[in-house]
Amino acid sequence: MPFQIHAELHYQVLQRTTVLLNLHALATANQKLSDESFQITPGVAWEELPIETSGENRYIRLDTGDVTELDITYSVTAETRHEMVSHEALHDLSVSQIRRSALPFLFPSRYCQSDRLGKLAGKEFGGIAHPYDQVVAITDWIFENIDYLSGSTDAGTSAFDTVTQRAGVCRDFAHLGIALCRALSIPARYFTGYACDMQPPDFHACFEACIGNHWIIFDPTRLSALNGLVRIATGRDAADASVATIFGKMQLTGMMVSCTSPDFQPLGPDDLAGQAIVLDS
Amino acid sequence: MPFQIHAELHYQVLQRTTVLLNLHALATANQKLSDESFQITPGVAWEELPIETSGENRYIRLDTGDVTELDITYSVTAETRHEMVSHEALHDLSVSQIRRSALPFLFPSRYCQSDRLGKLAGKEFGGIAHPYDQVVAITDWIFENIDYLSGSTDAGTSAFDTVTQRAGVCRDFAHLGIALCRALSIPARYFTGYACDMQPPDFHACFEACIGNHWIIFDPTRLSALNGLVRIATGRDAADASVATIFGKMQLTGMMVSCTSPDFQPLGPDDLAGQAIVLDS
Amino acid sequence: MPFQIHAELHYQVLQRTTVLLNLHALATANQKLSDESFQITPGVAWEELPIETSGENRYIRLDTGDVTELDITYSVTAETRHEMVSHEALHDLSVSQIRRSALPFLFPSRYCQSDRLGKLAGKEFGGIAHPYDQVVAITDWIFENIDYLSGSTDAGTSAFDTVTQRAGVCRDFAHLGIALCRALSIPARYFTGYACDMQPPDFHACFEACIGNHWIIFDPTRLSALNGLVRIATGRDAADASVATIFGKMQLTGMMVSCTSPDFQPLGPDDLAGQAIVLDS
Amino acid sequence: MPFQIHAELHYQVLQRTTVLLNLHALATANQKLSDESFQITPGVAWEELPIETSGENRYIRLDTGDVTELDITYSVTAETRHEMVSHEALHDLSVSQIRRSALPFLFPSRYCQSDRLGKLAGKEFGGIAHPYDQVVAITDWIFENIDYLSGSTDAGTSAFDTVTQRAGVCRDFAHLGIALCRALSIPARYFTGYACDMQPPDFHACFEACIGNHWIIFDPTRLSALNGLVRIATGRDAADASVATIFGKMQLTGMMVSCTSPDFQPLGPDDLAGQAIVLDS
Repeated sequence: MPFQIHAELHYQVLQRTTVLLNLHALATANQKLSDESFQITPGVAWEELPIETSGENRYIRLDTGDVTELDITYSVTAETRHEMVSHEALHDLSVSQIRRSALPFLFPSRYCQSDRLGKLAGKEFGGIAHPYDQVVAITDWIFENIDYLSGSTDAGTSAFDTVTQRAGVCRDFAHLGIALCRALSIPARYFTGYACDMQPPDFHACFEACIGNHWIIFDPTRLSALNGLVRIATGRDAADASVATIFGKMQLTGMMVSCTSPDFQPLGPDDLAGQAIVLDS
Repeated sequence: MPFQIHAELHYQVLQRTTVLLNLHALATANQKLSDESFQITPGVAWEELPIETSGENRYIRLDTGDVTELDITYSVTAETRHEMVSHEALHDLSVSQIRRSALPFLFPSRYCQSDRLGKLAGKEFGGIAHPYDQVVAITDWIFENIDYLSGSTDAGTSAFDTVTQRAGVCRDFAHLGIALCRALSIPARYFTGYACDMQPPDFHACFEACIGNHWIIFDPTRLSALNGLVRIATGRDAADASVATIFGKMQLTGMMVSCTSPDFQPLGPDDLAGQAIVLDS
Repeated sequence: MPFQIHAELHYQVLQRTTVLLNLHALATANQKLSDESFQITPGVAWEELPIETSGENRYIRLDTGDVTELDITYSVTAETRHEMVSHEALHDLSVSQIRRSALPFLFPSRYCQSDRLGKLAGKEFGGIAHPYDQVVAITDWIFENIDYLSGSTDAGTSAFDTVTQRAGVCRDFAHLGIALCRALSIPARYFTGYACDMQPPDFHACFEACIGNHWIIFDPTRLSALNGLVRIATGRDAADASVATIFGKMQLTGMMVSCTSPDFQPLGPDDLAGQAIVLDS
Repeated sequence: MPFQIHAELHYQVLQRTTVLLNLHALATANQKLSDESFQITPGVAWEELPIETSGENRYIRLDTGDVTELDITYSVTAETRHEMVSHEALHDLSVSQIRRSALPFLFPSRYCQSDRLGKLAGKEFGGIAHPYDQVVAITDWIFENIDYLSGSTDAGTSAFDTVTQRAGVCRDFAHLGIALCRALSIPARYFTGYACDMQPPDFHACFEACIGNHWIIFDPTRLSALNGLVRIATGRDAADASVATIFGKMQLTGMMVSCTSPDFQPLGPDDLAGQAIVLDS
């Protein structure tokens, strides 16, 4: 399915600043890019950091110099495939069988303090036999217990806060999902991307859990269609995958995101019956 | 019912220290004291602070001088009464009708950050119509969801931690109960006391919620019989009602508590059917 | 010195709400009130809660009923006196000599977690011999190390956050001052009031420390003149002394505060040399 | 310099457990290993995870099966070199010039919440011109302001706690150093290893800061000689580099660590004048 993606960011620059931008779609085995365009106005020094190791994100590093405003425009066509994996294929592997590359996603991170959620996760989800069913239950629990409320949280909010404060945005929903998975010894990682036809349009965050050594995608906000996601970045949590990590001082003054596909048919629960979705293995 | 109470505390004194002790039973309309005895060995300077305002706790203030060990012994016979209030008499009063003396027990305190638990309390218990039933549900929820685990918490642990970490001791259970009540605009206060025949014997903490302008006692640990409690102190939380608040440096090296009554019959759920217990109004 | 005080609050009421208002000046031995006027438009049910015990604050309790907006207007003339106490009179009393009524102000509270700041307070201020000089050093340290920054904190911010995040408003400055005093076994309490000619005009918060059994006023923001303060409330922290504690849902949509005196001469550091200011003993 | 290393760990296994062990020394350009020996008694299933990407740590993964005790023994001879870099060679590079591989070490992590320490770091160290001098000042500040106190912290303690609580062990000292560096936009990473002749003998943790694109080693505890360190692991913080990450339930019941070298001469401040130490670039 080809997705047309367009994003614009407008910043006011308050002092000379270096920015790590992370809004480029990733090129992966299941995600082919074409017609990519990236512009910064006025012209400032920037570079795309080469990917040195498989699994790294695409960072643009730019130095504002002495400009006072920045307009950033990005467009791409992303052709994605996803794999459907039947529940039977999602084996219940113990930590002793998890593949090495997934192990770091068992560790607690800045916004996913899984080390402090062990008892809660055990009580709420420990009685469920299979890890896939556990993650489905976690995702449902988040949807049912956390209010999606713009402005209720900030860049410092973590899963430990959200589990009690019970409100947040997609980033917070993802962090809580990840933290609860890790607390049950299920590797989980942060996903950011574009989401086809999502309302309101915005960058989106959800998460992937490693079950039977497959990375399965979950969206506890239920705002996106799982077959309409285009990956920007993967990470331990939002610290790894911010759209913009700012070293200096500048403010977002405007933003526009769109992701569309002429013939997009969102997969619904019925289409998924008995199957899970893998975006990238 | 007369309860025989005896408590011994042994401390090693590491530097000259002032201590506020709070282990004397309170004399109230429903709690009559006799045969009270209090001794500190070796002899050090101490005073019982006079109660200036109704509702204050009984503090002993002592100055260790240069002794290196302290043996503190307290005995009393406490004759208590409690009142049974039928559920029908527990009117659902809004904050606009709550009596003034209960209002400070709506505010968040050191260990009961009710201001951060509003959404959680609303989601879990907000659908329950009557405040009495809400507090019963809170008490049951704590019992079912929090592990009673000695050593799992320390003097810095608060309700905000416990609701996520899901383990604690009687103090933590009480703090969480109080915080959840206040988050629902139900005044709640900390109770410390002696508990007849409790196993293992120890100082106990639970909480009282103000419903229909009656202070109803609840014990989310289910360790004590509600008709077997002898009040030491009341407060916003444990900050107000520690057995010993230490200004200096000394360590508890031994402790013994007993509370017995020859003919004590603990009230069980059946005895309580349709009624709640008020210790002091 | 007579101060003319006028305050207006405008609220949008989003659902039926009970409010505890705390904007009336207190009548004390050193603060005489006249020409007091209080109005709520449109007319709703309200009462002033009688003060039952010395030291309580003046609360107005109102029930919005079904109005959708509220205009609250308060005016008063407050004639205040303050006492100047020479440093020599501020004896260095140990906890064993502090008067009973000050003891609760040694305990940690919601926004003043003195129990977690003991080492920091000891390291920064423990080497200073006299408690008065310690509190002066605390007040200076806060002024020098914390940025006064509107909007940098919210109603959940506490001293434990501020000591690290290093930004806040008057409320946060006061909380940190209180917490550091208590960590050094110096009783400290929260003060809210009107501040003559303060820029920008607003409700103000600072704190009082009990030294030699005198309550000395300190303002770590340096925004107010210490002889230009009119007390609204005293408390353990802002939980006890909010201008408005809201049980329900309403939003402040406008506010105006003024406190003036025709002949006001602010006391400066030179006027204070060797002396401290007591507002109420 | 060849270091003789020997470590023994004794565990009681309370339920079947998978463990990631991370006590093997790393083989790097500056660290050559010989005579390595690793034993687990009784025999259980274990594997050494192959290093897939440069920079990864050496993990042993073991599955306890149904044994109830584990004895783990590790020995190695590590021949290390370090590089001395003169201060003049440590250029003050902005984030726009930092090499890609160091960028993730600018992000906040579980135990190093640099995002919350920006103002504090700016106030304490922002006035220092050069990043090397900033890190030296951070290291000195930690040594002077934090008490090294065994048992004062636990596995959940983070830099945000330590900066206020002012006590900790080597792990906490390292976390605080890392967090303060990152808050100043200096990449910093966690180092664990063996430390020659350290008293008392133990696994050690300190940190490396990336200055002028060199990774310079710093030890804010001052317990180790910087030329006597043998690297076990590198990571964002202790979440990445625990000696044992336990998935299940087992308890450490005994531990012995030694690291010696017959002719070891610890480098002191005088030997270092004007130079910094790089262990691995």
